[in-house]
Amino acid sequence: VSAPVFQRVALLGLGLIGGSIAAAIRQYGLAESVSAFDRSSVALNKGLSLGLIDEAAESVAQAVTGADLVVIAVPVLAIGEMLRSISAFVSPAAIITDVGSVKAPVIATAREFLPRFLPRIVPGHPIAGSERHGVAAADSELFLRHKLILTPVAETDSDAIERLSAFWEAMGADVVQMSPEHHDAVLAQTSHLPHLLAYALVDTLSQQGDSLEIFDYAAGGLRDFSRIAASDPVMWRDIYQANSGPVLAILDRYTQELLALRTMIKTGQFDALEEVFGRAKFARDHFSKVLSERAEQATLGDDA
Amino acid sequence: VSAPVFQRVALLGLGLIGGSIAAAIRQYGLAESVSAFDRSSVALNKGLSLGLIDEAAESVAQAVTGADLVVIAVPVLAIGEMLRSISAFVSPAAIITDVGSVKAPVIATAREFLPRFLPRIVPGHPIAGSERHGVAAADSELFLRHKLILTPVAETDSDAIERLSAFWEAMGADVVQMSPEHHDAVLAQTSHLPHLLAYALVDTLSQQGDSLEIFDYAAGGLRDFSRIAASDPVMWRDIYQANSGPVLAILDRYTQELLALRTMIKTGQFDALEEVFGRAKFARDHFSKVLSERAEQATLGDDA
Repeated sequence: VSAPVFQRVALLGLGLIGGSIAAAIRQYGLAESVSAFDRSSVALNKGLSLGLIDEAAESVAQAVTGADLVVIAVPVLAIGEMLRSISAFVSPAAIITDVGSVKAPVIATAREFLPRFLPRIVPGHPIAGSERHGVAAADSELFLRHKLILTPVAETDSDAIERLSAFWEAMGADVVQMSPEHHDAVLAQTSHLPHLLAYALVDTLSQQGDSLEIFDYAAGGLRDFSRIAASDPVMWRDIYQANSGPVLAILDRYTQELLALRTMIKTGQFDALEEVFGRAKFARDHFSKVLSERAEQATLGDDA
Repeated sequence: VSAPVFQRVALLGLGLIGGSIAAAIRQYGLAESVSAFDRSSVALNKGLSLGLIDEAAESVAQAVTGADLVVIAVPVLAIGEMLRSISAFVSPAAIITDVGSVKAPVIATAREFLPRFLPRIVPGHPIAGSERHGVAAADSELFLRHKLILTPVAETDSDAIERLSAFWEAMGADVVQMSPEHHDAVLAQTSHLPHLLAYALVDTLSQQGDSLEIFDYAAGGLRDFSRIAASDPVMWRDIYQANSGPVLAILDRYTQELLALRTMIKTGQFDALEEVFGRAKFARDHFSKVLSERAEQATLGDDA
């Protein structure tokens, strides 16, 4: 599939992700024009002055009217409301997508409030980000060689999936498809749980005696955790609210394992502890190897 | 204090740390000769062929006889036994140190079994490491700009502390002193707890349904954790055994916090959750700033 060129892309939300999509559209020539709406006029003016967008829309209605692709790039709990607010203005032929970190609630809202748009709604999630925030950090290569997960449902048009896949692939992303429920479970495990553990660790340690001293010794292992605890608190609060079920499920399994390790230390079962560490190291090394071989084959495939 | 030159350094254990000390001694000219002992003759031969050591000793006795500095670089649970085994051969004037990750047990052994050596035993811990193992990975710059913690006690000679500090500083380390108990509590918090959390996470996730898929999405936060779960299982088993008290203390505080976050998610207290995240981010950002300013001042100081 060759890269699609959309007539008019409406970007709802112009932060790091929205801005980076705008930058990539420019770089790869994926749209005739890009209109953006954001509650922040500062962000919109920045987008204009950086040459990322053609139009700073004054309303959601203005942005989506005439658009053949609508990308919702707002915080995860605002996606549902945004979907409802565009329904009166968006063309029935437009493809609608989002970039939220949790997918089942988006589908649920679409099914309940916008059933006639359901075939053209293709929820998406780029597994890409940065510690930097806002449109000023926009990067046309943010999605390059990163996973982009689409979570279509039974009703979704295959044509809409194909066009949106080609759009993301043209920006360099590695597009995969899975069900919304599976996406939310996988992300709870690989992203939402690790972030929760990191926040809890940094918060616990910062309440210890000389916490400045503790962070001074962060090279010993804490540093990797503390980096992800610098993420945006509001964004993450919303993620746990939107994905509470899958997060609690994996958190409970994790806590069980942690308590088992505690018992081993407490009761002197150090051989059992070593066995767990060995199993974890084996799994980590095995998966690293398989995935790097796979990446190598993909690269060889590109060359051929 | 100018860099000391030792007549003969005995390295007991020639792995990554022992080998890197040998390499740094060579690079900075810190000893007339270096003798090493290791249970592995492969390691010793490698040390000889890399030109890191002058003598591959056939026994602990051979290595330490005539040495004025003895560095014990064996796994943490083997340090006590090594201390006892050298006592019949080591010169009463020699400075004895180690590089273990837990300090109180080393002091306890010294106090119990080698009381007359106690003034010359200065336990140390370089906060440096690598995912690579063994003498082949020896790096003379491994300690450069890394913390080196010395944990002297009331009986320790101030002359021994000064000479050992100058030795490590000559290798580029940033030497600090604290009590053994304080060291073990700080390391439990900044290193031992994070490693335990990482092992538990990787082990939990590797037992989920399609675990290869889970690791394929590791970019979302899991990657930082999984890197430290690749550490040596035996070394870490020994650390938890040697430092079980401080580890259990901070693990219990951590688990309490994690369960509090669980309750917030379970009962919909998302504002409280955001508050914790904000507090963690504030602490992390604050400490990062203070520490980078401090590092900057230290660099300016070097230039002046």
